[in-house]
Amino acid sequence: MQRSKTNDKRVLVIGLGRFGSSLALELVAHGWEVLGMDSSPRLVQAYADSLTHTVVADATDDEALRQIGAQEFTRAVVAIGTHLEESILATSLLVDMGVPHIWAKAVSRRHGRILQQIGAHHVVLPEHDMGERVAHLVSGRMLDFVELEEDFALGKTRAPRELIGIRLGESGIRSKHGITVVCIKRHGEQFTYATADTVPQKGDVIVIAGKTNDVERFAEIS
Amino acid sequence: MQRSKTNDKRVLVIGLGRFGSSLALELVAHGWEVLGMDSSPRLVQAYADSLTHTVVADATDDEALRQIGAQEFTRAVVAIGTHLEESILATSLLVDMGVPHIWAKAVSRRHGRILQQIGAHHVVLPEHDMGERVAHLVSGRMLDFVELEEDFALGKTRAPRELIGIRLGESGIRSKHGITVVCIKRHGEQFTYATADTVPQKGDVIVIAGKTNDVERFAEIS
Amino acid sequence: MQRSKTNDKRVLVIGLGRFGSSLALELVAHGWEVLGMDSSPRLVQAYADSLTHTVVADATDDEALRQIGAQEFTRAVVAIGTHLEESILATSLLVDMGVPHIWAKAVSRRHGRILQQIGAHHVVLPEHDMGERVAHLVSGRMLDFVELEEDFALGKTRAPRELIGIRLGESGIRSKHGITVVCIKRHGEQFTYATADTVPQKGDVIVIAGKTNDVERFAEIS
Amino acid sequence: MQRSKTNDKRVLVIGLGRFGSSLALELVAHGWEVLGMDSSPRLVQAYADSLTHTVVADATDDEALRQIGAQEFTRAVVAIGTHLEESILATSLLVDMGVPHIWAKAVSRRHGRILQQIGAHHVVLPEHDMGERVAHLVSGRMLDFVELEEDFALGKTRAPRELIGIRLGESGIRSKHGITVVCIKRHGEQFTYATADTVPQKGDVIVIAGKTNDVERFAEIS
Amino acid sequence: MQRSKTNDKRVLVIGLGRFGSSLALELVAHGWEVLGMDSSPRLVQAYADSLTHTVVADATDDEALRQIGAQEFTRAVVAIGTHLEESILATSLLVDMGVPHIWAKAVSRRHGRILQQIGAHHVVLPEHDMGERVAHLVSGRMLDFVELEEDFALGKTRAPRELIGIRLGESGIRSKHGITVVCIKRHGEQFTYATADTVPQKGDVIVIAGKTNDVERFAEIS
Amino acid sequence: MQRSKTNDKRVLVIGLGRFGSSLALELVAHGWEVLGMDSSPRLVQAYADSLTHTVVADATDDEALRQIGAQEFTRAVVAIGTHLEESILATSLLVDMGVPHIWAKAVSRRHGRILQQIGAHHVVLPEHDMGERVAHLVSGRMLDFVELEEDFALGKTRAPRELIGIRLGESGIRSKHGITVVCIKRHGEQFTYATADTVPQKGDVIVIAGKTNDVERFAEIS
Amino acid sequence: MQRSKTNDKRVLVIGLGRFGSSLALELVAHGWEVLGMDSSPRLVQAYADSLTHTVVADATDDEALRQIGAQEFTRAVVAIGTHLEESILATSLLVDMGVPHIWAKAVSRRHGRILQQIGAHHVVLPEHDMGERVAHLVSGRMLDFVELEEDFALGKTRAPRELIGIRLGESGIRSKHGITVVCIKRHGEQFTYATADTVPQKGDVIVIAGKTNDVERFAEIS
Amino acid sequence: MQRSKTNDKRVLVIGLGRFGSSLALELVAHGWEVLGMDSSPRLVQAYADSLTHTVVADATDDEALRQIGAQEFTRAVVAIGTHLEESILATSLLVDMGVPHIWAKAVSRRHGRILQQIGAHHVVLPEHDMGERVAHLVSGRMLDFVELEEDFALGKTRAPRELIGIRLGESGIRSKHGITVVCIKRHGEQFTYATADTVPQKGDVIVIAGKTNDVERFAEIS
Repeated sequence: MQRSKTNDKRVLVIGLGRFGSSLALELVAHGWEVLGMDSSPRLVQAYADSLTHTVVADATDDEALRQIGAQEFTRAVVAIGTHLEESILATSLLVDMGVPHIWAKAVSRRHGRILQQIGAHHVVLPEHDMGERVAHLVSGRMLDFVELEEDFALGKTRAPRELIGIRLGESGIRSKHGITVVCIKRHGEQFTYATADTVPQKGDVIVIAGKTNDVERFAEIS
Repeated sequence: MQRSKTNDKRVLVIGLGRFGSSLALELVAHGWEVLGMDSSPRLVQAYADSLTHTVVADATDDEALRQIGAQEFTRAVVAIGTHLEESILATSLLVDMGVPHIWAKAVSRRHGRILQQIGAHHVVLPEHDMGERVAHLVSGRMLDFVELEEDFALGKTRAPRELIGIRLGESGIRSKHGITVVCIKRHGEQFTYATADTVPQKGDVIVIAGKTNDVERFAEIS
Repeated sequence: MQRSKTNDKRVLVIGLGRFGSSLALELVAHGWEVLGMDSSPRLVQAYADSLTHTVVADATDDEALRQIGAQEFTRAVVAIGTHLEESILATSLLVDMGVPHIWAKAVSRRHGRILQQIGAHHVVLPEHDMGERVAHLVSGRMLDFVELEEDFALGKTRAPRELIGIRLGESGIRSKHGITVVCIKRHGEQFTYATADTVPQKGDVIVIAGKTNDVERFAEIS
Repeated sequence: MQRSKTNDKRVLVIGLGRFGSSLALELVAHGWEVLGMDSSPRLVQAYADSLTHTVVADATDDEALRQIGAQEFTRAVVAIGTHLEESILATSLLVDMGVPHIWAKAVSRRHGRILQQIGAHHVVLPEHDMGERVAHLVSGRMLDFVELEEDFALGKTRAPRELIGIRLGESGIRSKHGITVVCIKRHGEQFTYATADTVPQKGDVIVIAGKTNDVERFAEIS
Repeated sequence: MQRSKTNDKRVLVIGLGRFGSSLALELVAHGWEVLGMDSSPRLVQAYADSLTHTVVADATDDEALRQIGAQEFTRAVVAIGTHLEESILATSLLVDMGVPHIWAKAVSRRHGRILQQIGAHHVVLPEHDMGERVAHLVSGRMLDFVELEEDFALGKTRAPRELIGIRLGESGIRSKHGITVVCIKRHGEQFTYATADTVPQKGDVIVIAGKTNDVERFAEIS
Repeated sequence: MQRSKTNDKRVLVIGLGRFGSSLALELVAHGWEVLGMDSSPRLVQAYADSLTHTVVADATDDEALRQIGAQEFTRAVVAIGTHLEESILATSLLVDMGVPHIWAKAVSRRHGRILQQIGAHHVVLPEHDMGERVAHLVSGRMLDFVELEEDFALGKTRAPRELIGIRLGESGIRSKHGITVVCIKRHGEQFTYATADTVPQKGDVIVIAGKTNDVERFAEIS
Repeated sequence: MQRSKTNDKRVLVIGLGRFGSSLALELVAHGWEVLGMDSSPRLVQAYADSLTHTVVADATDDEALRQIGAQEFTRAVVAIGTHLEESILATSLLVDMGVPHIWAKAVSRRHGRILQQIGAHHVVLPEHDMGERVAHLVSGRMLDFVELEEDFALGKTRAPRELIGIRLGESGIRSKHGITVVCIKRHGEQFTYATADTVPQKGDVIVIAGKTNDVERFAEIS
Repeated sequence: MQRSKTNDKRVLVIGLGRFGSSLALELVAHGWEVLGMDSSPRLVQAYADSLTHTVVADATDDEALRQIGAQEFTRAVVAIGTHLEESILATSLLVDMGVPHIWAKAVSRRHGRILQQIGAHHVVLPEHDMGERVAHLVSGRMLDFVELEEDFALGKTRAPRELIGIRLGESGIRSKHGITVVCIKRHGEQFTYATADTVPQKGDVIVIAGKTNDVERFAEIS
């Protein structure tokens, strides 16, 4: 497998469990060249056909990482989650190899903190983040929820009665609820952006944006 | 612990691992009453102070579930992830108790399918979903990404050069790139909604909406 | 191995433990074509000669099941007992493949219930059923016992003194004991059906039919 | 717990797993006094309320068996199945104590043979026996099947077309098929015995008796 | 390997652990033809050169035993000690094959009893027997001790002062101590039998015979 | 428990497995005071009533050994067999404490050698020694066999035809076979010593002494 | 236990295995106040009397560390060696607490590197360092060896023949061998410093200083 | 691999863990011929290129040791640390082979004592020794510390203020502090020996020699 620093569309994915494999497949689907690596021959075998390259290797072994050319990647994802030790060892090796963009999956806040202390550039906590996200759906009113930033969230919900049949520009929901309708989906159609002239119908699904609490509160009254 | 069917703000969370505890804490933070349950005394102890109620009990034991009044909840989350068997047993019991809204965490698509066959109303695959979501950030251009529906996504990214200093209404990005700018964040300020009159500045962060591939492509040219 | 939907005499038996192998051998003995499958090479090897076809494969692997043509069988038996998870996964896969007749062995009532929720058509609990059946033999009077339905049973027992030398038609046991003698076995001979003219001798073994409790009670006085 | 040799309605059940507990509960339901014994406090606890007496004790310990008065029982069931060694040790102790009627559960034919060599009076192979029995149901024609003896079986099946509307006495099925209809169940009614005057209707369920192969063959044509 | 019933000098030794291998090597050293069998390739390999024949096989497998011709041996030793279950299974198989002389090693009295119930002809308890034998040496006076029968033992000890320089015939030790000197060993010489004329010297070692307690007591005063 | 150096009838037995417990019980039966020690509370409990003193303690812990006064015993038996490491540690501690007579059980020759290198005074290999001893009984002619010394053995056997009805003094077996009859047992009687005047009868059992090979050979012709 | 930042003589030692306990005991012996901490009650118990304070606690638990006041120590030693993960977690916590002097034991160079990346101030590799040190003693000439710095070592060796009876100032060993004699030990006396006037005798032991290779070479010719 | 007794530069290193491999590599670096041996193929593979010879073999197997010619080495290191039993067995075998110089690594004092009882010539306790050595560095004043003998130590430390700018010969530190400055290192230079004329500068590092306590105390005032 040849590589060059100028090739930006290559990613090294270490660990092909649930998280790593989903990530790797999504990258391949979007045209990236992915080298998938795992110490388990069974997992590597499972993704041999769907990823660009795959290799059975021990990511905690300096020599093994060098042989697959890890040091030449500009992007690497350490998707080892269950074994803290391996996750930390692999990240430490990539940091010392000077890989410029390292994402690392953590299973706990402390694990995440250690990965940062070692030098990982981005830390992801899937179980934790999804736990928080799903919490907003349990009420049964919100259909999806994402906090894009501390105190700014997007929510997918059904259009509430007070918006039905009224131009958004005249509904006054911004002043009343502190949120904005940014997208709308008619029954049987696709999502599209919403404008001041959009008039929601019964059964429409809308995406709202605003402060986390405002989004939460609006979804409940809807 | 007293309960009544009319009390809507109560959730039973079975399994207090990473996913379950994050979810439970988020619910409590938003004013919900949460009964956290786990077979591990250590985990229950860890969340005894932060959740409304906690109990050490075996969720695969019909009798144990009844004693904590599981059948009276309208919302339950089976956040048991590692042990397929326990996850399935607990879900089966809740289904037979007639709990109307059951969320269940799965570790694989087949696990998710079985939970649906048994009767779970919502199935979540945290590792899988986060893997796909993070894949869109690895390029280094996108700051966050959520697919709200098959082929409709939101992306957080820096405002690209071609938008700087131009009224969004005149930028023609909808026709050119198939995406809409729905929110914008000035440096040092908070996110707000974008209108046709919004004029992005250098360094602004924007939230764009559109078809998944269009969002992807726009983030890269930005 | 070729297969066609119109071939009714074929059964897929998944799991070649005590239950599965006994079942498979009995089917073969009665002219059925059996494909025996197990993940243990040792077990598959043990039945390679006595079953029509055998294969080492993982029944929890969708691809593996398809490769052996599981979807083309009209009858399948999931005889995996000890590993709840594998039993459930295999059953779920067969259900989704649309196999029209699925028997599944369960180790507990809840396991059985889950198999039904998933879509198994028949559930068997060997340990449980045999436990109940043997309970009726422990008294030492009954030689065999089967409950064919809720509150209707057949019992094998020695002809009691009150029947010896009397035509069954005149014995009045139906009115007195609520049971009927349906078969009889003379010492050294084979079983045959009983008629009103049958006269039991000392040492004869009879099969009686009736309500469970009546059969029980009659066996004791015999 | 007091005991006396003359008390016939008492049974010692060693091992409260699936088989043992089902057997013990069935005995209690029929008025027997059961002493249930297991080395697992969890299992003993589970049946403490439903069995006459329960005790946590090690059945491979001579002293323990004597303390619970095992030697005074006339009937004992060794329902230990998974651990060959314990099953054999317990049976050996009961034999040496002179218990006159010992039933023992075996997991394999060799296990069964050893139990007999040691001196058990009755050996049961639940997985094996149920496997053979269920084999006869897999064809989808037979509703239940029991072989009461080498080459003499009872089968439950739907009344075949050729019997509908005809007096059994005139149907000639004994000469034609070698089987006898011994019981019949009208739709919505209970089973009752069949006579020469019985006229089966469409949808009736019948119990037939005869040589194993004849019963098998008749069920298929039905 | 050819065999014939008339060949008396052949022994099958099942289990090549400490006991079995020592026994097998001793037999070979005395001109016997030994077939050593173990399920461990490592152990079989270790004795491949020193025993007449060796084979890796599972002694709990009927077929395996037949293939090596176990049924044609007139003498077999079941030297499996640690795994009760295997010891019992192997012995049961040999009994059913009709091997006329079966020695079996037991690890406990109950294990020994079961082997007898099954049909083993001789049972040996090495740890137990050696424990009792060594107990007699711990006093420091006895050099060796063997109980040949209930209450009749042989002891090896130094000639006590009261015998030195006196003809055994005149020493009166039989009447005084209840024991007889049967052998004697002069310093630097070999053992020989003792007669009434033998005159023990200081430092001589003698073998005495008598009731167990008398032998014990004599050794202490010596 | 008080102790004094001058008390000779005290033995410390470390390890209450098969070997250790048999040895300890035999010592107690012959009037010795035994302190039995094991790290297993279950084993200590089992012998609490039958040994003089028992204690649960870790024999590899210097302090624990001192607290029970191990250093004051003149005789100690290290009957730990399965765990080489513990056996070696305990022996090493006793050696350094200066216990003058240490017996240690070994499971292999190398284990025995190490115990000697460390300073144990007597090493016993039960499995090995019994294996050799039983080898001599497998022929079916010898009833018991003990090698008291390199090339000097005692054997128990039935009196051969050539000795029946002849005074031992005239039988010439010493010159002919190299062995001496030292004891004899009449049918139904006890063993007694043999003299030149003894006349063996048919069915008598004799103890013979001689060179190992001579004893072996004589038993076979008998 | 009270603490104050100004108290310099206090050290927190986490992990009381071989390394940690030896270190802690040595510190106590030199007048330091040591708080020994381990998650094993057994180890903590073992050093409860010899260390100033001991506590059973989990060093990977933020809360537990705070409760014992870890953040107030100016010196801490992470002596956890076998479990990489625990060693890293504990070190990470101490770093975030701002403990100014952290020593951490590593089992491999990579482990050591990670501890440094996280922020440990001193890393020790006992097995590795001792391995290198002992290598210099295996030649049999050097009695002890320490490399104080890259290419500067001290060696303990016997005075070589060429120095015997000669004033060190006149021996010319500095120019000839590149080493200096810094200390000397007369037979039966203690070590003292060496001067130009020191005259080594046969059997004296000297400490030499110099470049590593020179020290090595000198020891060999001595 | 050929060997001869006269070849002094050969060492057998058994066990290639941290300690053994560091030792072996250091020996090779100094021109020794090393045969590295381990039962782990992975470890042997790891050092196959850097050691003179390597072999996968079981050091507790007499035959294996002989085949690699262990008996012909004059120097052997038993660097097995974690498994007490293997360390003892290997050492015992080397002792019986007559290897004249045996170093053995111990994990505890008792382990070390046993190795000596068996006959090892040198025993090393890395964890223990390094623990004590590092204890002297924790104060933050001492840079390195080695105890060359009971109560005679060398310490590396910064030159204290009272020595700066003063000829060592005039400083009176020997009489005042009981220590001698034996080496000195100027900033940016290498270590060299110190004489009476040496004048330490600020920032110089010195090596001092003296009684352990004096060295300790001097480092603290410095």
